[in-house]
Amino acid sequence: MSSEPRASLNTAFTDRFGCRVPIMGTPMAGVSGGTLAAATARGGALGFIAAGHLSDPSALAEQVALFRALAPPEALLCIGFVGYSSMSVGFGRLQAALDDHRPSVVQFFAPALVPDADGCAWGNVAVAKKAGSKVVLQVGSVEEAKRALEAEADCIVAQGREAGGHGLRTELGSGTLPLAARVAELARGSERLLRPCVLAAGGITCGKGLAAALALGCDGAVLGTRLWASAEALGKDSLKRALVEAEADDVLRTTVFDTLANAYSPTPWPAPFDSVGALHNKTSKRWHGKEDELEALLAGGQGAETIAVFRAAVQAGDAESATVLAGEGVGAIGAIEPAEHIILRIEVEAIDQIRRMSGAIYVSSL
Amino acid sequence: MSSEPRASLNTAFTDRFGCRVPIMGTPMAGVSGGTLAAATARGGALGFIAAGHLSDPSALAEQVALFRALAPPEALLCIGFVGYSSMSVGFGRLQAALDDHRPSVVQFFAPALVPDADGCAWGNVAVAKKAGSKVVLQVGSVEEAKRALEAEADCIVAQGREAGGHGLRTELGSGTLPLAARVAELARGSERLLRPCVLAAGGITCGKGLAAALALGCDGAVLGTRLWASAEALGKDSLKRALVEAEADDVLRTTVFDTLANAYSPTPWPAPFDSVGALHNKTSKRWHGKEDELEALLAGGQGAETIAVFRAAVQAGDAESATVLAGEGVGAIGAIEPAEHIILRIEVEAIDQIRRMSGAIYVSSL
Repeated sequence: MSSEPRASLNTAFTDRFGCRVPIMGTPMAGVSGGTLAAATARGGALGFIAAGHLSDPSALAEQVALFRALAPPEALLCIGFVGYSSMSVGFGRLQAALDDHRPSVVQFFAPALVPDADGCAWGNVAVAKKAGSKVVLQVGSVEEAKRALEAEADCIVAQGREAGGHGLRTELGSGTLPLAARVAELARGSERLLRPCVLAAGGITCGKGLAAALALGCDGAVLGTRLWASAEALGKDSLKRALVEAEADDVLRTTVFDTLANAYSPTPWPAPFDSVGALHNKTSKRWHGKEDELEALLAGGQGAETIAVFRAAVQAGDAESATVLAGEGVGAIGAIEPAEHIILRIEVEAIDQIRRMSGAIYVSSL
Repeated sequence: MSSEPRASLNTAFTDRFGCRVPIMGTPMAGVSGGTLAAATARGGALGFIAAGHLSDPSALAEQVALFRALAPPEALLCIGFVGYSSMSVGFGRLQAALDDHRPSVVQFFAPALVPDADGCAWGNVAVAKKAGSKVVLQVGSVEEAKRALEAEADCIVAQGREAGGHGLRTELGSGTLPLAARVAELARGSERLLRPCVLAAGGITCGKGLAAALALGCDGAVLGTRLWASAEALGKDSLKRALVEAEADDVLRTTVFDTLANAYSPTPWPAPFDSVGALHNKTSKRWHGKEDELEALLAGGQGAETIAVFRAAVQAGDAESATVLAGEGVGAIGAIEPAEHIILRIEVEAIDQIRRMSGAIYVSSL
């Protein structure tokens, strides 16, 4: 057999994080377990296990064990923590998780605007660095990005408003395109010897999105929704199928779902991180724009019943009424597929697209 | 003198619209006059004159005369109309403007969701095509893009939520990155012999943004805010300076400014096109999220005074209180510059960036 030349994309991210493809699979609580992280790594990207609020250390240990069993031997163990909760409950749980699993990389999501009990930001970053982990910080605004630069993150994820799941409220965040370009520019201008990598997140589900991230000056892209609609993702098939059927127009960023979930969750997300990108379904159509009315209902006599009905929809995986987290790139998702195939296809498509762009450059003698 | 090779970007847009650079300067009412359109054309891009609501034909004639005097001889005359108002008042004004000026290209902004008096969409497109003009349609959602494809537009502008100025309300529109990628994909899949060009708009102010537009499969990019902060733009210097100082975080999409302006404007923008991307200043900080309260105030006894105060701020060019239309790419704007220089720099930067991306492709033998 002849030896086929194989093209890949080398960036500061692939160099520093030791992966072949400049893609990170984002940690999604309840979705990104060890199986998905391992499948993402088999595709050549960086796969994350989501530790969520770390309220159940044995659940995390189980997912890490799955990852160790299924991932290629060279794959790095990467764990994503919710930034503000790893600060607000003290560092005991975080320290224990780091001691137990020694992850090569940790991400803190929504970390930058919530200082710890002493008013000091970045205590969790210091803990992770001391444990020898590389640190990825997710941000949704230029202000947050500046703080992440000060914290000397190894990598900053610039997550635009079109992302699925939690993020800054609409009026505080920015779109992926201008945010990622601006954060990459700020990182390039930083005075550190080794500038942090910057990844674009939000609305990226195909190779053209990865190519756009590189065009914006980023070192790669983050996939969330695209991997949520994968075979290996934890979570209900009924919700994944809803992603396949949805169009960009069907996605809404709203606080409605968190308001409902917070009413029974022991770990509510605080403002300004309490909006989610999700499919605009019966529940959000009923309450979006009427948040005050919803709050009043939940506080009143009918509150318990409303919460019970919503919770039942979540448990049944009823996409018409439950929260179906989704980013605006959902229109390009055509099937629930193995994560490895998704990564490989996006890599090939991005390379093709960059070559096509080069072909658009026309050189003439004046 | 030696003949230096000169690189340029050839796309379906430059081919079909006869320009050298795949950039369109968007028509901005009160900003895009003949001088700016001519300067944009001198840079090699397509420059538009904004006809606004066509309420003053002599004002349009004056700007067209300026364009004819200042533009290179080969530059196409391009006029942008407000789509819904060119429908809702009948086609008399539009027809007269086309007869008077014979523009090579017309754009209809916000056209797709407002049928004419007979319930028939696209009457204005038919009028423009009959007059021999190429037709550009601006859209903000996948639904609108599908209608623009049915209308057989020559070019579709996919304008994301991060754009400055009018656009779909936050909950209806999408971010530029996923919207532009999806619309380009739909255009490529259309059954027409000659597929429409697709341009990305919203948050693009630098060459990396243009490169990202091409990466997404678009044929070019649209500049709004970047050209508003140009020497040739009509409008107040105090507002342009506010753009130079602003960061992406300072931009908000809100209905507050239209609610105030509609109270004294003879041509109010209807929902869902009545939100604008603008700098988040004293006025929007006071009223955003309290729109009901603002409506009540305007309808009540203090309404006239509130409107008078706001109108005075607009007339004075007081950036702290007036509407300062701005997109989220504003953070990359560092100075008020001649439009020609802006276009040329973006062209060079985009080409450099595409070459850099090609350099990231690493080919190995397996």
